Amino acid sequence: MGRVADQMPEFLELVPPHIALNTWMAQLPIELEAEEISSDAGLGRVTISPVISDQPLPAFTRSTVDGYAVRAEDSYGASESLPAYLSLVGEIPMGGLAKYVLLVGQCALIHTGGMLPTGANAVVMLEHTQIVRPGEVEILRAVAAGENTLQVGEDVRAGEPVIPAGTKLRPVEIGGLMALGYTRLQVVRKPRVGILSSGDEVVPPGTVPNPGQVRDVNAYTLSALVEAAGGVPIRYGIVTDDAAALDTAVSKALPACDLLVITAGSSASARDLTAEAINRLGQPGILVHGVNIRPGKPTILAVCDGKGVIGLPGNPVSALVIAWLFVTPAVEALSGLKNRRQRQSRTAHLASNLPSQAGREDWVPVKLVEGKHEIVAEPVYGKSNLIFTLVRADGLVRIPPDVTGLNAGELVEVVFL
Amino acid sequence: MGRVADQMPEFLELVPPHIALNTWMAQLPIELEAEEISSDAGLGRVTISPVISDQPLPAFTRSTVDGYAVRAEDSYGASESLPAYLSLVGEIPMGGLAKYVLLVGQCALIHTGGMLPTGANAVVMLEHTQIVRPGEVEILRAVAAGENTLQVGEDVRAGEPVIPAGTKLRPVEIGGLMALGYTRLQVVRKPRVGILSSGDEVVPPGTVPNPGQVRDVNAYTLSALVEAAGGVPIRYGIVTDDAAALDTAVSKALPACDLLVITAGSSASARDLTAEAINRLGQPGILVHGVNIRPGKPTILAVCDGKGVIGLPGNPVSALVIAWLFVTPAVEALSGLKNRRQRQSRTAHLASNLPSQAGREDWVPVKLVEGKHEIVAEPVYGKSNLIFTLVRADGLVRIPPDVTGLNAGELVEVVFL
Repeated sequence: MGRVADQMPEFLELVPPHIALNTWMAQLPIELEAEEISSDAGLGRVTISPVISDQPLPAFTRSTVDGYAVRAEDSYGASESLPAYLSLVGEIPMGGLAKYVLLVGQCALIHTGGMLPTGANAVVMLEHTQIVRPGEVEILRAVAAGENTLQVGEDVRAGEPVIPAGTKLRPVEIGGLMALGYTRLQVVRKPRVGILSSGDEVVPPGTVPNPGQVRDVNAYTLSALVEAAGGVPIRYGIVTDDAAALDTAVSKALPACDLLVITAGSSASARDLTAEAINRLGQPGILVHGVNIRPGKPTILAVCDGKGVIGLPGNPVSALVIAWLFVTPAVEALSGLKNRRQRQSRTAHLASNLPSQAGREDWVPVKLVEGKHEIVAEPVYGKSNLIFTLVRADGLVRIPPDVTGLNAGELVEVVFL
Repeated sequence: MGRVADQMPEFLELVPPHIALNTWMAQLPIELEAEEISSDAGLGRVTISPVISDQPLPAFTRSTVDGYAVRAEDSYGASESLPAYLSLVGEIPMGGLAKYVLLVGQCALIHTGGMLPTGANAVVMLEHTQIVRPGEVEILRAVAAGENTLQVGEDVRAGEPVIPAGTKLRPVEIGGLMALGYTRLQVVRKPRVGILSSGDEVVPPGTVPNPGQVRDVNAYTLSALVEAAGGVPIRYGIVTDDAAALDTAVSKALPACDLLVITAGSSASARDLTAEAINRLGQPGILVHGVNIRPGKPTILAVCDGKGVIGLPGNPVSALVIAWLFVTPAVEALSGLKNRRQRQSRTAHLASNLPSQAGREDWVPVKLVEGKHEIVAEPVYGKSNLIFTLVRADGLVRIPPDVTGLNAGELVEVVFL
């Protein structure tokens, strides 16, 4: 007798992670819907179309210093030893229009940000002037036309695109919008990400597990990850390892969300049930089944009926690492993010050797500690599939598939969890 | 006649940025208040006390593979050529208790995550077994006691601290809380940060500025920055450059918040008004007035009547850079954050020379672009105090005070905005 069906190799072919991701992302249906929000609530939201300035900024010629607005030509040749003498006509009120026109030989006191009066084209810094007698100012240094001023449109011109479509808003972009008076903004509606946990052994966190049962962790780590990536998590609870129950649950969830994330039960047979349920959800179905990565080999990437679907391993650490590698970019794409900034990370020296299997990509949890002269990445010991092992980690180090490990002392990039 | 009072140097002594920050932070009053939240809303919140596990995890001995639960000693000496034969007593239900006790010579089918039956102490992987006839399993490889299992408490023991006080929660910590059934959590109440804009020229973003007026940008960039740092921004609007108006506004704001941020008007005299208003707010008053940094020299750091107060320059870029350097750490400290993780950033090669003035710390906006073999940091051209110049930047590069600039090609750390 041969081996039973249970003993057949689960994956015919393991796909390299970057090919798996590209295959899936290339077919992921993305339809962006606009939503109007108050710009002051825009942090982390993504622009759906380019923001174009309808006005020049600054809107008027401004002084960049505290000093005297002058006609530059009146200052030519002025020096400490041979000052120019200008008659003071008054002070430019902040936030107001100068009520006079500057004539030849005249100057006006002006503050940083003040509006240059008609006739003035430069500002002499206060430090380069002296009051000799009331109404008369000594100019101790010449200024060129335009000096110490901001010209109309020097920050932005009317009609200029200022924020590209697909930009995730930072504090500075929110400031830019306000500078233009754009207090309302069209952004991409946040993608709704359905999250479904499966497994006969899984119970809600609020209950006391019976022997053999464990609390649902994945639904909550994944919700937080989706939230951090810019999506809205919708939890569909826990479904048992039963084909009919799975079909009912996924069929209910899929129409209500833009992306569906299912964490499978722990066993191979439970994962098979998940795979079959995903394939019944719609065409084209599963695109990738099995990724050459650790943790997370049994990952399923699918598109069903116009929606992305991902089947994650049941182990909480595997689920979280795979979600970070696959769910996050999908949520960002569904959020309309186009101008993804460079990844932030921390380089560090590896504290010890990290062996790995050639051909497979590994992600190893590490803790960053201050060394004598450098930051050191210490692998977090303990079985890597335990949630509290990962809690002790700051981030992950990638061991590429073309090596059999990394060496102690090597400089590595630590990406944060 | 000498120079007028206006022409006196505004700052007697410029303080190096790190000394300014340390001086202020050392005197910043911090009183943390607890708040109970639902753990699933905990992303980004900070623990107020250590989280201690009240139970071991796993709570029962679990299989880490699909295979057969065995008494390890029954497998000793087993090999492909000389298998051990065990009688199959049944299958362990996922999420359930095995209803039998494994006797000598017996095994039970078990799935990943399943609970070992009494008597079993190891699991043989399915790949290392063969069904020879119904009810009998060939064991092709020996296992040691404990092999392919997770022992009770191997992830976390009862009484073990699992999350230190002062930790900002990531998805993984939320998962850890759920694994323990901690669905409610004590966190630090978010600090309330009052934000007040001053300046006669400043109008709300929703209005059309008259000539000489500009829209308030700082209140909104700072709100977003405070939000990102974990605080709750409370905007107190715009106050004119008038001592009495300033006194009224700051006296109203201070009691209602944990930290007060005031952006001054642009001119030296407006800044003086702000400084005086801050000093009238309470003891000890201003600790630092003037920092040796660009942008942001006219920064004021104060503690008044038990609250931190910071006076920022009116220029939006200066205000944002200084807020990122000073307000963010203050908000984090007031949020109870103790275990600040290493700063994430991106190293890049500088595209061109960046001159600076020795003795002063400079922060220069750069854009990251993909070079042929490396990431390149291009200084963002345009006057550095314009908001849309900063919009075009990915981050900032620090020029330390002990150099007169950085050279093209140099490897620099870019910290993100």
